[in-house]
Amino acid sequence: MSKPLILVTNDDGMFAPGIKALVSVAAEFGEVVVVAPDSPQSGQGHAITLTSPLRLNKVDVFEGIEAYECSGTPVDCVKLAKSIILKDRTIDLCVSGINHGSNASINIIYSGTMSAAMEASLEGIPSIGFSYLDYSFEADFTAPRHYAKEIIAYTLDKKLGDAKLLNVNIPLLPISDIKGIKVCKQAQGNWTEDFVEAKDPRGQSYYWMTGEFYLESEDSDTDIWALNNGFVSVVPSMHDLTHHTAISSVKGLENSN
Amino acid sequence: MSKPLILVTNDDGMFAPGIKALVSVAAEFGEVVVVAPDSPQSGQGHAITLTSPLRLNKVDVFEGIEAYECSGTPVDCVKLAKSIILKDRTIDLCVSGINHGSNASINIIYSGTMSAAMEASLEGIPSIGFSYLDYSFEADFTAPRHYAKEIIAYTLDKKLGDAKLLNVNIPLLPISDIKGIKVCKQAQGNWTEDFVEAKDPRGQSYYWMTGEFYLESEDSDTDIWALNNGFVSVVPSMHDLTHHTAISSVKGLENSN
Repeated sequence: MSKPLILVTNDDGMFAPGIKALVSVAAEFGEVVVVAPDSPQSGQGHAITLTSPLRLNKVDVFEGIEAYECSGTPVDCVKLAKSIILKDRTIDLCVSGINHGSNASINIIYSGTMSAAMEASLEGIPSIGFSYLDYSFEADFTAPRHYAKEIIAYTLDKKLGDAKLLNVNIPLLPISDIKGIKVCKQAQGNWTEDFVEAKDPRGQSYYWMTGEFYLESEDSDTDIWALNNGFVSVVPSMHDLTHHTAISSVKGLENSN
Repeated sequence: MSKPLILVTNDDGMFAPGIKALVSVAAEFGEVVVVAPDSPQSGQGHAITLTSPLRLNKVDVFEGIEAYECSGTPVDCVKLAKSIILKDRTIDLCVSGINHGSNASINIIYSGTMSAAMEASLEGIPSIGFSYLDYSFEADFTAPRHYAKEIIAYTLDKKLGDAKLLNVNIPLLPISDIKGIKVCKQAQGNWTEDFVEAKDPRGQSYYWMTGEFYLESEDSDTDIWALNNGFVSVVPSMHDLTHHTAISSVKGLENSN
C-alpha cells in the first residue's frame, strides 16, 4: 500500500510552533504537503478571498517537507492545495493546527484552524483540527503530539464513518494528568465583548476587541466539560447550520401571506 | 408599546442597493440603527478582527436614520453595535442584507450577511439574513422588499420560538411568479473551485478564485429545491456544528489508547 498523502495547514502561519509539531507527527504516517498562510490568520473563520488575487510561494521551512505559503485565509489555503498544488492527487487526510488556544464550543465558528479543516471535509477529505489550550509560544507540545498521533492513527486506520471532520481540543495539563479522549458535542456558549477604546494621535477613537467566554450549559456530554475534567475533547462536526428542531416552530410563516 | 429597536447590517457595505431597501422596510416597523462595513466584505464568513483596531464613524447615508460605518467585518459590526453604540439598549431585531446573491445551502458558511445575523442571534437577538438571487447593482427589489416586510412582521409579532435566526433567500422572479414561502433545511452542496492563474508584470503567478456550485441532494425539503421551484426559502439556523448522528461512529476513539 502506498503511503497516505496528508495535507497540513493552520491559521497561525508557517512559523508557529504548533504547525511544526503537527508536521512532524503527520510525517510519521505518510507523505506530507504543507500549505499555510503567510501571516497569522486567527479569527478568520470561514473567510475566503474574492476581491483580490492569491499568491502561493514554495518555501523551505520544514526539513524535507514540501511546503507552500499562501497570501490568503486558511480556507483559501485548502482550496489552493486541492485545486492547484495537489490537483491530480487524492488527499487522504487533512490536519489543521496545532492551534495555540481553544476551539471548543462556539470558538469553532471564529476559528481559522477549524474552518480550514471544515473546508477540506467539504471537499470529501477526512479532516481533523487540533487545538491546544496554551497560547504561549513556548508551549510544551508533548501531550498534543501524543494525542494527535493517536487520533491520526485511528482516523487513517478505522476511517471515520459518517464523521468527516473532528474538532480536537487538548487541555493544558501534564500528559500524565490527562484522563483520555472523550467524544462529545459542542457546548453551547458565547463571548461577551468588552471593547477597549483608545484615541489615536489625532484624537479619533478606535476600538480593540476583547471578551469573556461564558458557558450556557454544564452538560457532561460537551467539549467544555471534557476539557474542564481533564479529557481531550473530540467533536465530530459538519457543515449543517439548520436548526432542525425549530423548523416546526416557524412553519406558520408559510401561511403568513 | 414603544417602537421596536432594529439593527440593520450587511456585508456589501453602506452603499449597496440591498441595504437601502432593507433600511426602508425596517423603518416601517420601528427605530432603525445601521452599523455596516465601510467596504464590501463578501465571503468574510464569521471572521472577526483581532490583530488590528476597529474604527467606527457616524455617517449620513439614509435620510433620518442613525448610521455608522465600521472598518471591520460584518461580525465586528454587530459586536460593536451591541457593545458600544447600543450598549444600554435592548435590540429587538437584527436584519442583515439584503445580500446581492444567494446564501442558500453551503453558502451560509462563507457569507458575511449570514454571519452578521448569526452573531446577533448568538447575542440572543432574533435575527434574519435576507439574500436576493440577483447580483446586479440595478436589481429590482420589489419582491425582496415585499417578503422582507412579511417576514419581519411575522418575526416581531409571533416571535420565533426556538428559532433565533432565519436564513431567507428570495428567488430571481417577478413577484407575481413567486409561489410563497417555504420553511426548509439547508441543502447539502458545495463549490468546486477553478482558480484562474495569471502572471504579474514580474512573471510571478497569482490566482483568482472562481468556482461552480453543485448540489449533493435534490430533496424537496431543502432551500435549493424551494428556490428552484419558485418559493422564498426560510431556513431556521443555529450555531451548532456538531455532527450529532456521527458521535457513535467515532466513539471507538475513547478506547484507542
